[in-house]
Amino acid sequence: MNWQPNRSLPLSLSKQIVQWMTEQIESGEWPIGTKLPPQRKLALSFGVNRSTLQEAIDELKANGLLSSKTGSATYVSNDSWNVLVKQKQTNWQQYIEASIHKSNFQTIQLINEFEQDDSVIRLGTGELNPLLLPSAAIHASLSGLDLDGKTIGYSSPQGSLSLRQAICSYVQKRGIVTSPENICIVSGALQALQLISVGLLETGSFVLQDRFSYLNSIHTFQSFGMHLYGLSEHQYTLDMIQRIRRNRQAILYTIPTLHNPTGNCMTIQQKKELYALCESAQLPIIEDDVYCELLFDEEPTPAMKAFDQTGGVLYIGSVSKTLSPGLRIGWVIASTPVIQRLADIKMQMDYGSSAISQQIVEHWLRTGLYERHIEQLKIELQRRAELMDSLLQQHFQAIASWEKPKGGFYIWIKFHEPIVTTDLFMQLLKNKVLINPGYIYAANDAHHIRLSFAYGSDAELEQGIEILYQQIQTNKHR
Amino acid sequence: MNWQPNRSLPLSLSKQIVQWMTEQIESGEWPIGTKLPPQRKLALSFGVNRSTLQEAIDELKANGLLSSKTGSATYVSNDSWNVLVKQKQTNWQQYIEASIHKSNFQTIQLINEFEQDDSVIRLGTGELNPLLLPSAAIHASLSGLDLDGKTIGYSSPQGSLSLRQAICSYVQKRGIVTSPENICIVSGALQALQLISVGLLETGSFVLQDRFSYLNSIHTFQSFGMHLYGLSEHQYTLDMIQRIRRNRQAILYTIPTLHNPTGNCMTIQQKKELYALCESAQLPIIEDDVYCELLFDEEPTPAMKAFDQTGGVLYIGSVSKTLSPGLRIGWVIASTPVIQRLADIKMQMDYGSSAISQQIVEHWLRTGLYERHIEQLKIELQRRAELMDSLLQQHFQAIASWEKPKGGFYIWIKFHEPIVTTDLFMQLLKNKVLINPGYIYAANDAHHIRLSFAYGSDAELEQGIEILYQQIQTNKHR
Repeated sequence: MNWQPNRSLPLSLSKQIVQWMTEQIESGEWPIGTKLPPQRKLALSFGVNRSTLQEAIDELKANGLLSSKTGSATYVSNDSWNVLVKQKQTNWQQYIEASIHKSNFQTIQLINEFEQDDSVIRLGTGELNPLLLPSAAIHASLSGLDLDGKTIGYSSPQGSLSLRQAICSYVQKRGIVTSPENICIVSGALQALQLISVGLLETGSFVLQDRFSYLNSIHTFQSFGMHLYGLSEHQYTLDMIQRIRRNRQAILYTIPTLHNPTGNCMTIQQKKELYALCESAQLPIIEDDVYCELLFDEEPTPAMKAFDQTGGVLYIGSVSKTLSPGLRIGWVIASTPVIQRLADIKMQMDYGSSAISQQIVEHWLRTGLYERHIEQLKIELQRRAELMDSLLQQHFQAIASWEKPKGGFYIWIKFHEPIVTTDLFMQLLKNKVLINPGYIYAANDAHHIRLSFAYGSDAELEQGIEILYQQIQTNKHR
Repeated sequence: MNWQPNRSLPLSLSKQIVQWMTEQIESGEWPIGTKLPPQRKLALSFGVNRSTLQEAIDELKANGLLSSKTGSATYVSNDSWNVLVKQKQTNWQQYIEASIHKSNFQTIQLINEFEQDDSVIRLGTGELNPLLLPSAAIHASLSGLDLDGKTIGYSSPQGSLSLRQAICSYVQKRGIVTSPENICIVSGALQALQLISVGLLETGSFVLQDRFSYLNSIHTFQSFGMHLYGLSEHQYTLDMIQRIRRNRQAILYTIPTLHNPTGNCMTIQQKKELYALCESAQLPIIEDDVYCELLFDEEPTPAMKAFDQTGGVLYIGSVSKTLSPGLRIGWVIASTPVIQRLADIKMQMDYGSSAISQQIVEHWLRTGLYERHIEQLKIELQRRAELMDSLLQQHFQAIASWEKPKGGFYIWIKFHEPIVTTDLFMQLLKNKVLINPGYIYAANDAHHIRLSFAYGSDAELEQGIEILYQQIQTNKHR
């Protein structure tokens, strides 16, 4: 050994010894089990004090590269290779923790994970049962698509023109008169929110919304420094809105028809009032209308977008809750500068949505297959809603309240006692029942569950509600 | 008129008069053409100086709400309603300017826009000619898909398991041994970059790359506060990398095979050296391998991911350059914490990629349709490459240099003089020829054009190159 540390380097002598010894082990010069020379001899050979050498050896022992057997002899440890491999692994956790986007809530990560397990009863899922999706009819319709090389190339920034034309006709029944220039196709309503977040709002903006809100369950706005502010009913006033936003940019998020998670429907009068309020507050509106097709007994009232004279409403539609979530097709309708902006960012994010999915949706809209399918779907959803309502009446009448659903997927049940905790969620998960607890829609809520009658089979709904009931009883008597 | 401005308000008297008069016009109290009382009388009635009143009236005239006919009489202007409607329009420009994501470069916005115009010759496009896409075969394969309700529901966070299994087998020929847990399906390679940007990097990170780089043409990293740093050849050293990044997080972006835009291919030795360099620098690597299938005469050497012992390589693949960009399907292969992180963010961004697109890609990979298609495709691309090369030899031998392409879509031509300016781009656009100028791949470059032989027909390539030549000649003699 004729190596010695270099006193002119900025690295301490002991650190240099650590590095050099690590290299000897790494290169195989010093195989596992190698016995090091006595420390006195080593120190002399390196030209350093014994204490400096001791410092280096202690560090290598702490790292697991060296070990001492009986007495003072030091060996290259049996585990040294594992240690070296681990040291070299890229420390991704450090990258992840410092990065920009927030993680999903733990509860939602668990939901996403356990939804893959077919033996789990999904009592919360915002998704149609696979049997309610018209998969055979979609399959059959594929042969009717017009797939040439143009249509399966890169899309135009706003998405397929013929799909946008079909959407123009389709949204007339929502009272919306628009043109293809005012539409941008997106990969589902969630992507629309993503584009709005990074494309229209500045860091520090306020997103005003109902106290219980779908937005609270995702991090699309908070990840980029925006603040969500939940309004309770009496806070929807000009004064209050101005007080909250102060001089910051703000936008209002609302689901006027079949609200997620509460199931509420605004009357036409309420929509007009909210629109007028936002107009005077110069507060743009995101109108999320993805559930509007699913009202059971009544026609939905016109969208707020129908009153829009000032270009302040960003309207979002989608086929994920009706035709198939796997198509990943939604749309935004807004004024021209907004659409151009969203399309420009979409081109920088994913170069457009799946061309085949766009073709399928266009085909279903144009041929009327879509509307006919929804008629059938509503009948089945209503049957399921009644089943769920009667199951709840059997078990929960004394301890909770809820409204009979007017449509959609959900019953928003409110327990009189604050029993909907992470404990309850985890206990149910152990019993293979997944719920969407209220606290993912409003921080600290412990009273609500969003129950979905759209996913489980009749038997699963019955069994799931029974397990929920039993668990609540067990907890009560503990 | 018994209104008077309120002297205790923080708003100036003249501003209060402006507001009040605007309200009179807006509410219809003062219809179009209304003649205002003489100023002396008005000032008296408001209890203000004539100069204060004059100030208010001047502002309203400037806004177009009031107008003066002959003499001193003032009227509500004929245009006042239009003006009021415009004033109430949501000022989206203000939102857009303050928002987070950068806009595309003007040049790229123009490219995206004019690519929609079929009469334009696209000499730069990174896209296969529609006739080279196997649209009939894709159409025919649709009937072979296995579309049940499960497959067209929401995807699992990492994407279809059977597609991920098919990718595991497929990438073995790139020397990559992996498992479905280490794969995340994305909507094209661009989305992979988006997920890496917000999911793994902190604001202020450095993205190191070649001086000429695809990344310079998009804003995926810069929009979130990361710095792109272009390295020239001699800067790929440990010392240089550490000097650039200082103590910040950093990552290296590279396209080792058929580099975009230069067309370069690294040898296996160069790949190993770069990998070793990054390993010692603890610098993770994004390996963009989307062109690897398109080498004409040789088998591609193994991916850098094949050497990866430390989990430092994020490997990106896609079918957009081979099968169809409209499918929007790509994949990332990386270590487990990275894949879980990217999948979690993807779930918050768009709930997964199109299920039908995923099914199609799986079918094409599994049945061998994909590889057979690529064999055909390469023959045609090679024919086109030779055509383009001979066209360039006819026109540009004296004024430019380039290499005969080894594969892919592009010839990266370098003009001896700095003639590739925005002016040239715009002149060519007027002549209906679109090019990708070098300056979108490296700021201030004026020597290069990325010419694509993948898109135009033979006639269009000939005509386009001729127009390019003529334009350059014209500019030279000006």
